[in-house]
Amino acid sequence: MSERPPQDTAAGHWVSYRPEIRVLDCTIRDGGLMNDHQFGDETVRAVYRACVDSGIDYMEIGYVNSRRQFPPGQFGPWKHCVESDIRRIVGDNDTALKLSAMADAEKSDYREDILPRSESVVDLIRVATYIHQIPLALDMIKDAHDKGYETSLNLMALSTVPDGELHEALALAAESEADVVCIVDSFGALYGEQIDGYVKTFQSYTAGNGKEVGMHAHNNRQLAFANTVQATVKGANRLDASMAGLGRGAGNCPLELLLSFLHNPKFRLRPVLHCIQHHIEPMREALKWGFDYPYMLTGVLNQHPRAGMAFNESADRGDIIKFYDSLEDPD
Amino acid sequence: MSERPPQDTAAGHWVSYRPEIRVLDCTIRDGGLMNDHQFGDETVRAVYRACVDSGIDYMEIGYVNSRRQFPPGQFGPWKHCVESDIRRIVGDNDTALKLSAMADAEKSDYREDILPRSESVVDLIRVATYIHQIPLALDMIKDAHDKGYETSLNLMALSTVPDGELHEALALAAESEADVVCIVDSFGALYGEQIDGYVKTFQSYTAGNGKEVGMHAHNNRQLAFANTVQATVKGANRLDASMAGLGRGAGNCPLELLLSFLHNPKFRLRPVLHCIQHHIEPMREALKWGFDYPYMLTGVLNQHPRAGMAFNESADRGDIIKFYDSLEDPD
Repeated sequence: MSERPPQDTAAGHWVSYRPEIRVLDCTIRDGGLMNDHQFGDETVRAVYRACVDSGIDYMEIGYVNSRRQFPPGQFGPWKHCVESDIRRIVGDNDTALKLSAMADAEKSDYREDILPRSESVVDLIRVATYIHQIPLALDMIKDAHDKGYETSLNLMALSTVPDGELHEALALAAESEADVVCIVDSFGALYGEQIDGYVKTFQSYTAGNGKEVGMHAHNNRQLAFANTVQATVKGANRLDASMAGLGRGAGNCPLELLLSFLHNPKFRLRPVLHCIQHHIEPMREALKWGFDYPYMLTGVLNQHPRAGMAFNESADRGDIIKFYDSLEDPD
Repeated sequence: MSERPPQDTAAGHWVSYRPEIRVLDCTIRDGGLMNDHQFGDETVRAVYRACVDSGIDYMEIGYVNSRRQFPPGQFGPWKHCVESDIRRIVGDNDTALKLSAMADAEKSDYREDILPRSESVVDLIRVATYIHQIPLALDMIKDAHDKGYETSLNLMALSTVPDGELHEALALAAESEADVVCIVDSFGALYGEQIDGYVKTFQSYTAGNGKEVGMHAHNNRQLAFANTVQATVKGANRLDASMAGLGRGAGNCPLELLLSFLHNPKFRLRPVLHCIQHHIEPMREALKWGFDYPYMLTGVLNQHPRAGMAFNESADRGDIIKFYDSLEDPD
């Protein structure tokens, strides 16, 4: 045995835990990108129950996106999050779990569709934005904040944003009503060292103003969990994950892995595993999310996974070389 | 645009590459733990061709383990690596690819079975050892070195070794004939920060004596690639990976991901993807390697994956909760 080491004040502790950390389950919201949000009520209710039982902090139940752009019928209810649909699942949500809904910049009729907080069971509105939509996104944040919600500004596709533009956006975010500013690696393109850099940069704009840094990872290169751990170690306190990693393309940071890493005794793994076994894994054959070579290749090229998703929907699914060659030699 | 940043002398460069890095493909050797090394010649030859064509540095073709302990017939040829079996695949191996074989401490008749280097196409002998077998392993290293081989000492199950014993083992390794000392995360239990610590510790024993540090990761927690990247960034120059991650239980660091990270232009991804599509993925249904909840749970508990492997061979496969409960409440 060696002597007691000097007190470590860094964020990374492996036996203890950081009570400030909040976990957001995005299974239905991000997973819905694989089935146009056509989940049955039983599935959404099972995810809700599992989130409650496992001590998850937030469940993001879907998008508040436009019913004009995404017609009901063609898209399931979790594309719009109409209050009556949510309440059919959660009632008045008399639990410790908070509910979240996401609004996409340029895809949401947010002024009309987001109710005053006092009329809704939703607690948190997250605004997803590309860099060129920041002014609109900040208006959406203000609208949600003024209606009484907690708010998060989620900066998508960060791996394609030049440093100068990122700094400008973060300076605006720092002045905004957003409670959280979230790193979004939409393409699953980033390495741990790069995550370090983003967390540090984001923190330089949130230090002292009470805002938190969030992390939303994709698994194109099997780095979603590793990058979420890395962001946590560096101080990100708002972590996204989904059951069995269900999410667009290669999916998200698996919630079951994240809970195994977070040692806060309020979290319980078993309800999540139960939900995965009985409700999530049975959808895998139809929804086909998770690590796959086409998503790996779009991640390596720092591209949106849509080409991989289209390929996996085509008759060529499994012909890795054909997809590889199409990327190397595009039309 | 900002100014030119100060010259970075750290190991992590994201656009350039480190020419000292050597990649070892362990597809057949580690993957054989899922089928008692019963690969057909066509598969082994395809992996060999892909390694040659993609610029891989070493291919580990199997174990040189005891034919008394592992009877031929019950085990395939890649459990023993008899010279005539290897030559049936590679001829005289007139390529830039080097060949490796692994000998397990207490499982190999190494004095008799490992030929003098001049009579073999094998270039590298790697000795796999648990901490309590170090004296035997060092004798095996000396035997292989004296016969003319490159040698690597692979320290298995490091995540269970107390610091004091590790330091003692590394001091002995530093005095040994081993050219490489390899970090082996047998249980897939380690995080990136812990990998940092191991690389630093190993380097403190290899600095100045010309030995290299290696990394062999398992994917129980979807961290095999991330941890291999982390080890690389910190200075490990000998990296193990396998095609499609084929390996025991949750498998290894996927070679296709590793090549996408290493920017040395000598490496080519396409031959690896071709081999995966035509030879490796077709075995997945039978061999059942890769991330799965039982392996995740053994990884979280820092245990050997054998309980998970047995479960996945049983009629209960897929009943995640049953496996979880068996771990929480063992006999």
